Amino acid sequence: MKTALADVNTPAVLVDLGLTRRNIDRFQAYADKHGLKVRPHIKTHKLPAIAEMQLDAGAIGITCQKVSEAEAMIAGSDRIKDVLITYNILGNEKLAHLAALAKKVTLSVVADSAKVIDGLSAAFAEEDKPLTVLVECNTGADRCGVATPEAAAELAKRIAAAPGLIFGGLMTFPPTGGARAVQSFMSRAKVFLEAAGIDVPVITSGGTPSMMKAALAPIATEYRPGTYVYNDRSLVARGACAWEDCALTVLATVVSVPAANRAIIDAGSKTLTSDLFGQTGFGHVLGRPDIAIDQLSEEHGRLVTTGPIALSVGDRVRVVPNHACVVTNMVDAVHIVEGDTVTDIWPVAARGKIT
Amino acid sequence: MKTALADVNTPAVLVDLGLTRRNIDRFQAYADKHGLKVRPHIKTHKLPAIAEMQLDAGAIGITCQKVSEAEAMIAGSDRIKDVLITYNILGNEKLAHLAALAKKVTLSVVADSAKVIDGLSAAFAEEDKPLTVLVECNTGADRCGVATPEAAAELAKRIAAAPGLIFGGLMTFPPTGGARAVQSFMSRAKVFLEAAGIDVPVITSGGTPSMMKAALAPIATEYRPGTYVYNDRSLVARGACAWEDCALTVLATVVSVPAANRAIIDAGSKTLTSDLFGQTGFGHVLGRPDIAIDQLSEEHGRLVTTGPIALSVGDRVRVVPNHACVVTNMVDAVHIVEGDTVTDIWPVAARGKIT
Repeated sequence: MKTALADVNTPAVLVDLGLTRRNIDRFQAYADKHGLKVRPHIKTHKLPAIAEMQLDAGAIGITCQKVSEAEAMIAGSDRIKDVLITYNILGNEKLAHLAALAKKVTLSVVADSAKVIDGLSAAFAEEDKPLTVLVECNTGADRCGVATPEAAAELAKRIAAAPGLIFGGLMTFPPTGGARAVQSFMSRAKVFLEAAGIDVPVITSGGTPSMMKAALAPIATEYRPGTYVYNDRSLVARGACAWEDCALTVLATVVSVPAANRAIIDAGSKTLTSDLFGQTGFGHVLGRPDIAIDQLSEEHGRLVTTGPIALSVGDRVRVVPNHACVVTNMVDAVHIVEGDTVTDIWPVAARGKIT
Repeated sequence: MKTALADVNTPAVLVDLGLTRRNIDRFQAYADKHGLKVRPHIKTHKLPAIAEMQLDAGAIGITCQKVSEAEAMIAGSDRIKDVLITYNILGNEKLAHLAALAKKVTLSVVADSAKVIDGLSAAFAEEDKPLTVLVECNTGADRCGVATPEAAAELAKRIAAAPGLIFGGLMTFPPTGGARAVQSFMSRAKVFLEAAGIDVPVITSGGTPSMMKAALAPIATEYRPGTYVYNDRSLVARGACAWEDCALTVLATVVSVPAANRAIIDAGSKTLTSDLFGQTGFGHVLGRPDIAIDQLSEEHGRLVTTGPIALSVGDRVRVVPNHACVVTNMVDAVHIVEGDTVTDIWPVAARGKIT
């Protein structure tokens, strides 16, 4: 298929594969130079075909956040063979799905408590193949993760001793600019573990904003960037990329120009989402830095200017969202574009997979 | 089916039908008392079966925001016979779908510009049945809508004169507490129109926060509440309802308790959404007013307290989201609950219908 952008029903989420490939290659080259393995987080695209592009570029496997997300990705590509789920998995239903997944691919998960480890062990004790479990460490993001290297070592010992489990290493989701904190925490944890006779095969860190400084934590063996594949307004604001690197945009139509300095587009919070991600306003209109998207209703986006808005009803705009990862999750399919032409429509295989 | 809540895979969006019915009946009784017709906005639930509950209670029809949303609702219930789409509809694809819809139900739409009216007229000029078009008026929300009663009258005349169209009245989405502004704007517009010999059969207003003061704008003939069907944290904060009236909740599991005053649940921005809706934090944990949900990642929600959080890994919580309408749109299905039992799972028929 070939459809001109002018004929696409709006709002529509557009993905430029050329830019996507360039974004993938850029970080892979950096990682290769620094001897870092890449395990991209697919939460951003949720598309098996883009995971394959990442594997082609040199990724060692993928990262998923939920069991159902991993299932959808594996179902969509027989080339995905190695999956890390960076989540504490609890509950009989999820554990049963996890055991089924482990028969299909090389699977690892994380844990930050004895309760999670014991649940994983109970689920895998009778399985033929043990499950690899990494300890999640809090290096400053204050989300999940054990608070100290000592606590990490204690949980690692528990994993190593648990039936059905293998200790796989240490994982963290660091704060932006947290490479030195990662280096410090992980170095100390590794010392504790090696003193206890436990090898630490993998130390995995992540986060797109700081990815080009990943080498400041040389103790890490792998890195899990997610948003880098598309980029977004928050990353432009942080200086991590330029507008020209933003591979995901939202095509919208101006449906009303009710005042000289106000226009309304047909993309609201059910498309762009309300994620601010540290920004003011809800996205960037490409080519119109004078416009602020100052308010979203569910299906309306409000564009305002200080001078004349100079838009007419029926005009189309392309919006770089604040946060690409949540936008991809709003739609059943994305439009693949080359320049001003839509070349394909791809179902978002893992959209809405939250369990 | 009957499943205990304790066995439901999380996160899950729960809908209590008993509370839903009570919420529907409460506003219908108010509207009946004041001689106001009710045309609920289905954006909140996107479920044909709940639209039927609203019709059973006395609603005269439904409101949709998008053509695709209306299509999904009509496909899901042959009892939906009257639909108002409160949106400026532009573009050949949408207009073709609109013409097809008009053959199935009594259909009306809104317009706030000559461009939209002319497009509708071109699409319906050759149809057997004319399309009813209302003029959207800005009574202070500063979204869409003509700015003055004079401008409303001008557009009404254009509709009345356009082949294929019938002028249906005036529509507004008022600001919260805007009943007096509605009364003032609409009264003046009606005078202009009637002086021009044009009847104004419908004046439709909406918005849940001010719905129990709708009678302060007696000129309105119908009202379009949406969120009232479920209620949410923003409405509790505005004093429009109590926690006990919140029919939609998110069931989540505590997956980590990494510090004495911090716990992490498995519902993040891809479930609760980042909509703040004037609130601080991202939801209310039922029964735990001491907890703030201060940060969301895509699949993590962070719960913090000033004292001890007193939660354990594996515990479950129910969260009232800031904004119910966007949460229903995040999931393919909602769990219907009675007390602590899930009695059914309903696919969200119009989820993701943004075009």
